[in-house]
Amino acid sequence: MQRAAMPKFVLYHAWNSSASRKVRLMMAEKGLDYEGHVLDLLRFQHHTPWYKKLNPSGIVPCLVVDGHNLVESNLIDEYLDEAFPDPPLMPDDPTQRHEVRRWSKYIDDVCLPAVQKPNWMKMMRPMCEKWSDEELATRMAAIPSKERRDLWTRMARNPFTPAEIDAALDILENMCAQVERYLEQSGGPWIHGERITLSDLHAAPYVVRFEEERPGRLLPRTEEWWARLIARPAWKTAQIGTFMADNERCIAEAMAEPD
Amino acid sequence: MQRAAMPKFVLYHAWNSSASRKVRLMMAEKGLDYEGHVLDLLRFQHHTPWYKKLNPSGIVPCLVVDGHNLVESNLIDEYLDEAFPDPPLMPDDPTQRHEVRRWSKYIDDVCLPAVQKPNWMKMMRPMCEKWSDEELATRMAAIPSKERRDLWTRMARNPFTPAEIDAALDILENMCAQVERYLEQSGGPWIHGERITLSDLHAAPYVVRFEEERPGRLLPRTEEWWARLIARPAWKTAQIGTFMADNERCIAEAMAEPD
Repeated sequence: MQRAAMPKFVLYHAWNSSASRKVRLMMAEKGLDYEGHVLDLLRFQHHTPWYKKLNPSGIVPCLVVDGHNLVESNLIDEYLDEAFPDPPLMPDDPTQRHEVRRWSKYIDDVCLPAVQKPNWMKMMRPMCEKWSDEELATRMAAIPSKERRDLWTRMARNPFTPAEIDAALDILENMCAQVERYLEQSGGPWIHGERITLSDLHAAPYVVRFEEERPGRLLPRTEEWWARLIARPAWKTAQIGTFMADNERCIAEAMAEPD
Repeated sequence: MQRAAMPKFVLYHAWNSSASRKVRLMMAEKGLDYEGHVLDLLRFQHHTPWYKKLNPSGIVPCLVVDGHNLVESNLIDEYLDEAFPDPPLMPDDPTQRHEVRRWSKYIDDVCLPAVQKPNWMKMMRPMCEKWSDEELATRMAAIPSKERRDLWTRMARNPFTPAEIDAALDILENMCAQVERYLEQSGGPWIHGERITLSDLHAAPYVVRFEEERPGRLLPRTEEWWARLIARPAWKTAQIGTFMADNERCIAEAMAEPD
């Protein structure tokens, strides 16, 4: 399944988006270069018609490979592992490969909605609390999914309470506790043992945010695992900073939109 | 990645569950036998502590392979294709493999919540509209996910309106229209061309339900594709009947619960 010639990669992403960070980490581990286009989510570049042609869901990232638009960070990373198998970032055993997919789906289904709560309060709330009802309605009409419309409406009118933010961080803490159990069971140094896999990469952006919000709470094996992960060259290549600094980068570096 | 010896398969499923049907179809296409255990969802066997040990999400199906509990129908089917590659039910091309996963995720994220609306009105509503507030509260306490608790609460107290059921069936009709576009683009006979893949199998249980609710509405290429699909030996082996007949089968054949 290896491709004959190296295709051209164009990545549409945001520096502080957890899903974008998963794909940047994967490309860095694979040693793949890309032409990057940064979207300013505060300017709603991801809800514009030209971007929704690339990704009808109106979310980042989207990886364009020789004209094919690949979406969904977990599935982009699986594609990259299949198309560029060296070095492998999936286990060999089919049962363990299933576990990588189950863990990645859990992160997407459970941890992503959780991390959005503190993220959106920091990033979106200061802007959209100022919107008039009319401006809110116009913004909502451009958003493809009900979940996303609900989230924006909450930010504008009925922001998350401290108890809701706390419950969201508990979910991330529980995810970190599961990393500890994996490491106990596998013996490390990575979640599934000797080989670093998508399970490690897909947890990483959520550990970053957990550490920012509740610093110093990682369990012993997870702390060692974390030190190993951020010491890898790929971590530097993927350019994962603090959430608000990466937000500023997006505002400063956002792409010029097509005509 | 082929296993050396054939493992023992134990499948926990419900005859009329779309996710269970996806896995039964896959096992039939692969020629794999299993020991089947039917759960009676109306008796909440999937919310019992012993079942939640197998699948903490408390949903069917769960495939136990030599003591490994595999969950999530899309991911079970990917496991089966990797562990038992002959005949292959994924495309060879990495870009097309990504598209199978994207389509399967869309079916899970969008079409499953849609099909639940008519399903639950037929199957659950007649029972739970009779519950007292106390019985409702007891039932809810055993359900692991908020989405599922919300669904049961709606069935008991605030059932879906005809307009909501109609909107749900529109989603399934849109899915069928996408099958037509795939067949146009690939030239058929299957969604991605010459080889039948998980994309065909994962759409099938939703086409069954759409045909039951809005008969005779499939577009021309989809109608031919459908005739080809249900003529396959695997269709018979997977035992996919009408929704309410399969519900009766579950009630009649439900497994004895462990002590």
